[in-house]
Amino acid sequence: MSSSYGTIFKLSTFGESHGIAIGGVVDGVPSNFQLDLDAIQYELDRRKPGQSAIVTQRKESDTVQFLSGIFEGKTTGTPIGFIIPNEDQKSKDYDHIKEVYRPSHADFTYDKKYGNRDYRGGGRSSARETACRVVAGAIAKQILDKQGIEIFAYVDQVGAISMQGEVKREKIDQNIVRTANLEDAKRMEELIQLVRKQGDTVGGSICCQVLNLPAGIGEPVFDKLHAQLGKAMLSINAVKGFEYGSGFDAIEMNGSEHNDAFNPDGSTKTNHSGGIQGGISNGMPINMRIAFKPVATIVQEQNSIDKKGEAVKVQGKGRHDPCVVPRAVPIVESMAAMTILDYSLRANALKF
Amino acid sequence: MSSSYGTIFKLSTFGESHGIAIGGVVDGVPSNFQLDLDAIQYELDRRKPGQSAIVTQRKESDTVQFLSGIFEGKTTGTPIGFIIPNEDQKSKDYDHIKEVYRPSHADFTYDKKYGNRDYRGGGRSSARETACRVVAGAIAKQILDKQGIEIFAYVDQVGAISMQGEVKREKIDQNIVRTANLEDAKRMEELIQLVRKQGDTVGGSICCQVLNLPAGIGEPVFDKLHAQLGKAMLSINAVKGFEYGSGFDAIEMNGSEHNDAFNPDGSTKTNHSGGIQGGISNGMPINMRIAFKPVATIVQEQNSIDKKGEAVKVQGKGRHDPCVVPRAVPIVESMAAMTILDYSLRANALKF
Amino acid sequence: MSSSYGTIFKLSTFGESHGIAIGGVVDGVPSNFQLDLDAIQYELDRRKPGQSAIVTQRKESDTVQFLSGIFEGKTTGTPIGFIIPNEDQKSKDYDHIKEVYRPSHADFTYDKKYGNRDYRGGGRSSARETACRVVAGAIAKQILDKQGIEIFAYVDQVGAISMQGEVKREKIDQNIVRTANLEDAKRMEELIQLVRKQGDTVGGSICCQVLNLPAGIGEPVFDKLHAQLGKAMLSINAVKGFEYGSGFDAIEMNGSEHNDAFNPDGSTKTNHSGGIQGGISNGMPINMRIAFKPVATIVQEQNSIDKKGEAVKVQGKGRHDPCVVPRAVPIVESMAAMTILDYSLRANALKF
Amino acid sequence: MSSSYGTIFKLSTFGESHGIAIGGVVDGVPSNFQLDLDAIQYELDRRKPGQSAIVTQRKESDTVQFLSGIFEGKTTGTPIGFIIPNEDQKSKDYDHIKEVYRPSHADFTYDKKYGNRDYRGGGRSSARETACRVVAGAIAKQILDKQGIEIFAYVDQVGAISMQGEVKREKIDQNIVRTANLEDAKRMEELIQLVRKQGDTVGGSICCQVLNLPAGIGEPVFDKLHAQLGKAMLSINAVKGFEYGSGFDAIEMNGSEHNDAFNPDGSTKTNHSGGIQGGISNGMPINMRIAFKPVATIVQEQNSIDKKGEAVKVQGKGRHDPCVVPRAVPIVESMAAMTILDYSLRANALKF
Repeated sequence: MSSSYGTIFKLSTFGESHGIAIGGVVDGVPSNFQLDLDAIQYELDRRKPGQSAIVTQRKESDTVQFLSGIFEGKTTGTPIGFIIPNEDQKSKDYDHIKEVYRPSHADFTYDKKYGNRDYRGGGRSSARETACRVVAGAIAKQILDKQGIEIFAYVDQVGAISMQGEVKREKIDQNIVRTANLEDAKRMEELIQLVRKQGDTVGGSICCQVLNLPAGIGEPVFDKLHAQLGKAMLSINAVKGFEYGSGFDAIEMNGSEHNDAFNPDGSTKTNHSGGIQGGISNGMPINMRIAFKPVATIVQEQNSIDKKGEAVKVQGKGRHDPCVVPRAVPIVESMAAMTILDYSLRANALKF
Repeated sequence: MSSSYGTIFKLSTFGESHGIAIGGVVDGVPSNFQLDLDAIQYELDRRKPGQSAIVTQRKESDTVQFLSGIFEGKTTGTPIGFIIPNEDQKSKDYDHIKEVYRPSHADFTYDKKYGNRDYRGGGRSSARETACRVVAGAIAKQILDKQGIEIFAYVDQVGAISMQGEVKREKIDQNIVRTANLEDAKRMEELIQLVRKQGDTVGGSICCQVLNLPAGIGEPVFDKLHAQLGKAMLSINAVKGFEYGSGFDAIEMNGSEHNDAFNPDGSTKTNHSGGIQGGISNGMPINMRIAFKPVATIVQEQNSIDKKGEAVKVQGKGRHDPCVVPRAVPIVESMAAMTILDYSLRANALKF
Repeated sequence: MSSSYGTIFKLSTFGESHGIAIGGVVDGVPSNFQLDLDAIQYELDRRKPGQSAIVTQRKESDTVQFLSGIFEGKTTGTPIGFIIPNEDQKSKDYDHIKEVYRPSHADFTYDKKYGNRDYRGGGRSSARETACRVVAGAIAKQILDKQGIEIFAYVDQVGAISMQGEVKREKIDQNIVRTANLEDAKRMEELIQLVRKQGDTVGGSICCQVLNLPAGIGEPVFDKLHAQLGKAMLSINAVKGFEYGSGFDAIEMNGSEHNDAFNPDGSTKTNHSGGIQGGISNGMPINMRIAFKPVATIVQEQNSIDKKGEAVKVQGKGRHDPCVVPRAVPIVESMAAMTILDYSLRANALKF
Repeated sequence: MSSSYGTIFKLSTFGESHGIAIGGVVDGVPSNFQLDLDAIQYELDRRKPGQSAIVTQRKESDTVQFLSGIFEGKTTGTPIGFIIPNEDQKSKDYDHIKEVYRPSHADFTYDKKYGNRDYRGGGRSSARETACRVVAGAIAKQILDKQGIEIFAYVDQVGAISMQGEVKREKIDQNIVRTANLEDAKRMEELIQLVRKQGDTVGGSICCQVLNLPAGIGEPVFDKLHAQLGKAMLSINAVKGFEYGSGFDAIEMNGSEHNDAFNPDGSTKTNHSGGIQGGISNGMPINMRIAFKPVATIVQEQNSIDKKGEAVKVQGKGRHDPCVVPRAVPIVESMAAMTILDYSLRANALKF
C-alpha cells in the first residue's frame, strides 16, 4: 500500500533497480485529455542518468512504454499502465554487497523489515523508482498546464554555495546543475566536479513554486495542502527536510512582521504564508524548499558490517551521482504536480 | 476525508472552536488494553489554555468524556468516541471579524473554499481541534509505552533564543516553556513575556524524539516513515517546516562526513540518518525538528480587508498565545505517537 | 477502520448498544447546504424502537444532537459530529448472557476476535449502530433530493408472504410493515403478530429503488456501483443476500431474453440491467432486493454454550423485533443514499 | 481508484481488451514467501479462452510475465508488477460497433461517463481484466494454503439445470463445465452446447467455499467479511446477485429454525450463518453463491442505437462464451482468496 500515491489522481509503482522493468499505474486521470507523449519522455530525459558530466554515467535510455488508458492519443479515463525497461542490469556489480550493509543506505533496514532483499543496486530502495513518478508527474503537469497552473523547480543550493542571483526560470534547463541563473550554475558545477574528483558527494536543496493556483484549493486539518506537499517531497530519496513560505526563518520572526497584509483584491503584500493558509491555497504563489543529503555511495573505502555483524570494507564503484539535486528537479516538480492535481480534483468533488 | 488520520490506528475529528463540543473517534485500537484515563486528561492539561502566565488566558477545562469503546477499564477494540465540550463560547468576541479577513489566518481561504464559515474563533481552522489529537495521541502513547517505545518533545528555540544546554528530559514539564533545561527556560520565558507586553507574538521550534523503536518499522517509497511524520507535524497549526536527522544541515555536508558508520551490533556511530533509512527505522533514536511561525493574532491594529475587499482595521482581543510552542509540545508528541503506533500496526499486518 | 463508510462523503460511527451514547462523524459534505434537521429526526423515528405493535417495545427516543459542521442552519463543509444518547440502558437485562454465547448472534465471534466484549445488548454488534447510518443517510438523501434524485425502499416479503399488489410509493409509510400497498400490509402484519405470539421471529426482504440518477455515475472494475451497493446492504445487520436488476432470476434466462433493447433516447425497453451496466448507471431506475434473516433473539429456550464450552440454556427477554424489515426500510434507504451521493461526488471529481 | 482492490493485500489492474497488454501490481504481499509460478499460470489457464468446446474460441495464451517483487523465487515484500500481453488483437472485428451501443453491454454507460472509449472488444469493460485478478488471487491462494486455509468454487447451476448430485471437489476440474460431479456436468454441458447452436447464451451460478479459516477473522460494521465478499463477487463481470449461508432462503425461515445451535467446541450443528456472524468468521465453512446473467453478446441480430440515437442492427461475431460460469470459477476463487488474505492481514495488524 505504501507504493501508491494520491487519493483521486493516483499512482502505484513497482519495480527494482535491476529487475526486468520498473513501471506504474496512474488511475483517476480525467478522460478525453490529449496527451503529449513526447513531453512525458522529455521529463524522463531530464531525470535520466548519463545526461551530463556531473551526474552518474550509468547508461539507461529510460524509455517509457504505455500499455493502456490512452486511445487515439487521448486519455480514456481508465488506468494508464506503463513500464520502463531496465537496460543497464550489471547485477554483478553488486555481488560484493550481497551480504553487506552499505552505510546510510537502506540495506540494513530493508533486511530488518523484509528478511529478504533484492540487493542489486538497492533493489526497491533505489531512486530509480522515481522515474515512474516523473511519468505520472508529467501527465499531471500537462493537465494542470491546460488550466494555467504552472509548476517549476530549480536547484537553490549545492553544498555551501547558495544561489545568489535572481530566479530566471528560462535558465533552469540551460545549465546542467538546473539552478535558476547561469552565474550561480558555474560555481555550483565546479563544486560538484570537485567532490566527484574526491570520490565524495555533497548535499543540496531545491526550490519549487506553483503559480496561478486559484484560492480555495486544499484541505483542512490533517490533509493540509502543505502537509501533503511535505509528505510528497520527504518521500523522495535523500530528502531530509521541507519548509514552505517563511519556513524555518519563521522561528525568529514576530507576528507583526510575519503577518501578510491583504491588498484589496485578496492578494497579499508579502508571502510568508507561502501561498497557503490553514492548509488551503490563498491564490499567491506556493513556494517550498527541500533539503537533500549527500548521496550515500562514495568512492572511498568505508568501514561497515555484513549480515553477521562482522567488520567489512565497502566502496562504491564510481557510476554514482556526486550530487543528487540536478536530477531531482523533475522529481520534485512531479511530486508537486501530482499533489496539486489530486487536490484540485478533491476540491472538484465537493462542488456539488 | 481530510479530518481523519492514520491507516490502521485512525483518528477522525470534528468540531469548531465555538460550537457545542469538539470530539473524535479513534478506530483501530488494539483490544483488551487497560487504559489510564487520568493520563489522557493529564496530556490534555498540558495543552489547555490558561495553564500558565505565558499562554492564552482563555478558560477551558478541556475535560474529555469517553462515550464508547472502553468497557470495564479496557479497550474493546471497537471505536473510542469522545467529546470535549466547549465551555468558553464567548461568540460575541468575534462579531467584529464576521465579515473581515484577519491577516495570516485561514478566514480568507476557508471562505474561498467553502463559501460559508463559522467565523467564531476561527471555527474549524482553530488550533482547538488539536485537543482531539492529544486524546488519541495519549492513547497511542500508552500502548507504545507498554512496548517500551518512548516519545518526548521539548521546545528547542523561541525567537532567536535557541537551547544551549543539555537535553534533560525530566526538566521539560518543570518549566512553563517546556524546554529541556531550566537555564534556557528562563531566557525563553523572558522573551515570551516581552513580546506579550508588546502585543506581539514570536515563533519557535520543537524537537521530538522516539526512543527504542525496533529496526524494521516503516514503509518504502511514498509512505516512508519520515515522510508521514513530516505530514503529521506539518498538519499542526502554525507549522512551517520539518526536518529529521541532519535535516537542512545536510545540504552543506559531504557524503564522507554524513554517512553513519555501523557498529557491529547494527547501531551507528553517528545518527545523521535520524533513526530512519529508506523510510524504515534502523533502531537508532528518531529525532526531528519542527518550525512554528509566530501566532497570527496580535494585539496591534492591522490593515486588512473585508469580504467586499474594502479596507478595514482589525485587532486581536488579547486572550491569545504570544508563542505557540509551549502548548504545542503535547500536540507534537501526539502526532508522533499516532504515527509510530500506526506504522507498528502496519508492520504487524505483514508478519504472516 | 471498519467503522467508516464512503470515500468522499464519509461516515464514521462509534458506540455500543448500552454505552453512554452512539454517534458519528460525517465528513465530505458539500458546504452551504440548508439542512432540514426535522427531516433527519423523522427518518430516525422511522427506525426507532417502540414505534408500532410489530416492533421491539424497547423505549428510546433516539434524539440526534448535532455538535458541529452546521452553522446558521447550513452545512459549513466541515465534519458534522453528532451523538444519540442511549436512554434505555437496562444493562442488568444482560447479566445472564455475560458468559454465554447466544446462537446466531455475534457474541462468539466478537469474543474470538477481540478477547473482550461489551456484552450488554450485543454491544457494538447491536443493530443500534444503524441509527447513526440513518442520520448520515438522511443528510445524503436531502442533498440528492435537491438534484432530483429520489430513493425509496419498501418491504417486499415477510416469511412466505410476498407482495402481490402494485408498488404504491405513498402507501409505504401508511402501514406499519412498510410494504408498498395496504392489502399486502395486512397479511404481512398478521404473520408478524403470529410469530411474535409464538416467541419466534421471521425473515423478510426489502426492495429499494433509485430514481432519476443520470447516466454515467459509477465506477468500473472493483468499485462497480452495484458492487458497492451490495456491500452497503450486506453490511446491515441480518442481511444474507443482495441482488439487483434481474438478480438470481438471470441464472435461468437466455441472453436473447435478458438483453435490454435500447429506445432512441438511450432508455431501455426492459430493465434487467437494474439501471447499471458495467458498474455505471445507465439512466434507468436502479432497483435492488435485500434478504434479511429472522432475528436471532427468540423468546424460546435454546441450548447453547458458555465461554468454557459448558452447555447452558439461553432465552431472549421479549423486547425484541419479531421481524426486522419494517424498521430496516430507512436503513436500506440510508445506505443507498450515502452510496449514491458518494459516487456522484466521485464522478464530480473527474469532471475537470 | 476503482481499479484497486484490498486494504493491505492490494491489487491494482490496468489494461484494455485489445491494447498492448493488461497487467497489475500486487502490493502488501508478505515477504520471503516461496511462490510457485507454475501454479499461478495454471490458474490463468483455467480462465483462458479456447480451453474447451463450450467457451469462446478466441485464442490467447494468457501468459503472465512478472516484472518485480520476486527475487530468487521468493517474494521480497515489494510490489509484484506483472503483465499479460494481448495477442489476439483483431481490432477490425470491432469497427462495426465503433459508433454503436450493444444492448446490455457497457458501451453506452462508458460513453456517458468518459465521453471517450476504447471500443475494441469492450475496452476496459471487457472481462479480460479479470485475468489480472486471477494472477493476484493465485498468489493469495498459495499464501492461504500454507496456513491450511482452502478455497474452492464450482458451477452450481446453468440455466434451469441445478446441481443435483453431491459436491465432489476432485471432480471440479475433471469436467469442462466445472461443476462438482460428473453426472450434472453432462447435463449442463449439453445445455450450453444447445444455446451455443442457437446463437444464444445462458446464465448460471457458482458456489464458493472457504475451509479452515479460524474464528475471529473479519470486521464489524461496514466492512463485515460477507459484505466485502459480496462486493468482491459483484465486481465480477455479469454478476447479478450474491448470497451467503442461508441467503435468500432465510426470508421464509423462522428464527427457531434458522439459529445455529452450538456444539461444546464452538462449532455449530447447522450452518445457516455461512461461517460468519456479525461480519466475523466463526470457524465453520464459509459458503456463498453468486448469480451470473447470460452473456450479452449473442449471435443474433438485435435492434439497437448508435451514438446519435439512430436505430441500427447489431450482431455478435461468434467468438464469445455461450455461458460464462465455467471460466468464472477461478475468478470467483481469486476474489475470495484476495479478500480472505486481506482480512487475515487486517486481523494480524491488531494482534499487538
